[in-house]
Amino acid sequence: MTPASTGDLLITNIRPHGGAPTSMLIRAGRIAAFGAPEGQGVPTFDGQGRLAIPGLVEAHAHLDKTLYGMAWYVNDVGPRLIDKIDNERAAKRSLGIDAKRQSARQVALTVGHGTTHIRTHVDVDTDCGVSSIEGVMATRDAHADHVTMQLVAFPQSGLLIRPGTLDLLDAAMRLGADAVGGLDPCAIDRDPKGHLDAIFGLAQKHGKGVDIHLHEPGEMGAFSMELIIERARALGMRGQSVVISHAFCLGMPDVAVVDKLLADLAAAEIAIMTTAPPSRPVPPVMRARAAGVVVGAGSDGIRDTWGPYGNGDILERAMFVGQRNNLRKDSEVEVALDICTHGGAAMMGLADYGLTVGNPADLVLLDASCPTEAVVARPRDRITFKSGRMTARGGAALFQVP
Amino acid sequence: MTPASTGDLLITNIRPHGGAPTSMLIRAGRIAAFGAPEGQGVPTFDGQGRLAIPGLVEAHAHLDKTLYGMAWYVNDVGPRLIDKIDNERAAKRSLGIDAKRQSARQVALTVGHGTTHIRTHVDVDTDCGVSSIEGVMATRDAHADHVTMQLVAFPQSGLLIRPGTLDLLDAAMRLGADAVGGLDPCAIDRDPKGHLDAIFGLAQKHGKGVDIHLHEPGEMGAFSMELIIERARALGMRGQSVVISHAFCLGMPDVAVVDKLLADLAAAEIAIMTTAPPSRPVPPVMRARAAGVVVGAGSDGIRDTWGPYGNGDILERAMFVGQRNNLRKDSEVEVALDICTHGGAAMMGLADYGLTVGNPADLVLLDASCPTEAVVARPRDRITFKSGRMTARGGAALFQVP
Repeated sequence: MTPASTGDLLITNIRPHGGAPTSMLIRAGRIAAFGAPEGQGVPTFDGQGRLAIPGLVEAHAHLDKTLYGMAWYVNDVGPRLIDKIDNERAAKRSLGIDAKRQSARQVALTVGHGTTHIRTHVDVDTDCGVSSIEGVMATRDAHADHVTMQLVAFPQSGLLIRPGTLDLLDAAMRLGADAVGGLDPCAIDRDPKGHLDAIFGLAQKHGKGVDIHLHEPGEMGAFSMELIIERARALGMRGQSVVISHAFCLGMPDVAVVDKLLADLAAAEIAIMTTAPPSRPVPPVMRARAAGVVVGAGSDGIRDTWGPYGNGDILERAMFVGQRNNLRKDSEVEVALDICTHGGAAMMGLADYGLTVGNPADLVLLDASCPTEAVVARPRDRITFKSGRMTARGGAALFQVP
Repeated sequence: MTPASTGDLLITNIRPHGGAPTSMLIRAGRIAAFGAPEGQGVPTFDGQGRLAIPGLVEAHAHLDKTLYGMAWYVNDVGPRLIDKIDNERAAKRSLGIDAKRQSARQVALTVGHGTTHIRTHVDVDTDCGVSSIEGVMATRDAHADHVTMQLVAFPQSGLLIRPGTLDLLDAAMRLGADAVGGLDPCAIDRDPKGHLDAIFGLAQKHGKGVDIHLHEPGEMGAFSMELIIERARALGMRGQSVVISHAFCLGMPDVAVVDKLLADLAAAEIAIMTTAPPSRPVPPVMRARAAGVVVGAGSDGIRDTWGPYGNGDILERAMFVGQRNNLRKDSEVEVALDICTHGGAAMMGLADYGLTVGNPADLVLLDASCPTEAVVARPRDRITFKSGRMTARGGAALFQVP
């Protein structure tokens, strides 16, 4: 059969979450029933006994600045965060990194691996203005049938240290960005109160959430996190409308401090996002979830001027989450996968995500006996559906990009 | 063309280590010349401009006990090392883990990804005796044309704490094992002097080297490492005939202690092996190499009762080494690949390894512009030659296993 185009489909013989074989009836792109027999007057797709999992959620990307598909970039950047920031801002012009073209390429790459939802942080600065926001919005609109996208207006080069950036963030929000971004209020912006008051103020003005890059480690990061929690509480921003990305300070050795922060995050309904980097302290995902904190996961930048790694495969990200947190039991590896599906969806505030009747039919079929095998084997032969329409097969998106 | 069977071959249009395109003339399985024109009276293989790297070196495997190819094993094992050891010894019988069959399966898996050399640790204990040694030796002999294998007789369940094991290790060495293994002289065997004297004595008796699993962290591991260095010096065991696998203690925060240990390891010509696990302290590979220490890398156990991860892809291991050590520059990622090729070969004491005239023609061709792209993209379409004979293509070995 050919990819369904109407959003009406009967997928037979699939095993949702590794359970018993069943069928999934899809009508107008949404899951209408499980266990429906054939003869529904809709096209049929034979799942051949494959495992079915919800569409993978890329909860933290930087689509506007990947170099994927461009000439190989020889990286010789310095070790500090600010080295990478300055190097990148210059490289955008010298290399001609076009946000629209590059974001489309990464969309195709990651949808090819089974992604159905993306939150991407998009650079806003006094060099590029809101042009990257506009480029990624064009990609979002062009691929609305292939992936659900959220944009965070992200002051990558600093906010208060680069006057004019706050106005540009305001402009990005007027254009329709979904959340206000932030970045290391102490380490980069040198004024934690000023930085956080500015971005929370902007979020309040536009009635949107915030998603803050917090790389600051140890006690400095814990201090910034406390300031974020105080503001979320004071403004009544609940329900994961505040997200702290990276949250490396939660990987500090002082378990008592970490547990208190986790409890406060959970009470304030603030979510965290981890990429589970092997060389950095990371939030302990099992303890975070046990405390009630919503945890999503994402790729961060891939194939960019920051570093050469990454392929946009969120199933591989689940493996990284599992390995970084030393998750070995099947029940634990399933948590890593849950973070890369339901966790990311909750972090993004998606109300109708998951393999439940009534939700959009966003799912991935793969040749694995169980969810843990899917994570560790990462079979390439995946079949992805977005609102009941096939978007990818065999590791490749079924649509063209520049 | 079909896989060469004579070991005579001209491979045209390849880029060794990412350099200028050239040809490689192979006679009787060894590299005879670079840049030879066609018309040598040997079959020709068109490299189509691919990158050529030396055959990948799996410097630390446990071929005898992978579950790869068996029914999915639901892991629910406890968190301590001893939990995993005891669980595994029992599982070998209950699951019927056949060392000969399983080692052959992992050989095919890892050769499929481009491996040409393997050092494997093989369990010797009072339950299985030397039967696993015999099984893996059968695999080694059956696949001698496909991969070079070294066996380490490994007291996985402890040496002195399980009387009779030392005699079995002696028997394994008489059967022809290549090195004497050891395991956490403090943490597992509870008698560091007794453990190390026993295994070094056995190595001396048989004129072989040692390769010791040292998971012990921090000061305890540093203490055991000092004891190992003392014995290597006293016995004049130079030239990487002593290997310390894992060496987690070198990941301790006290840089002064680590640098002293690295200097002593280098002076004693003791090599280390890292799997670069994301959730454990690890040896800092750049500092180790700068100090002059030989560093190899390996998969450790894959798909076994210890955990579900791993696929035997040593190019993926290079990515792990790079990410765990935060290697981002091209020049640094090339070091990660070097550890997974020349480093492992030096650790194994291979005298004739590498893309140099006179050496066996052990190489991998892949579709990547440069070594760093090979590591981060890990293209599946690899073509592997062992002594000039094609052993794998497209991610799969060209030979059959049970």
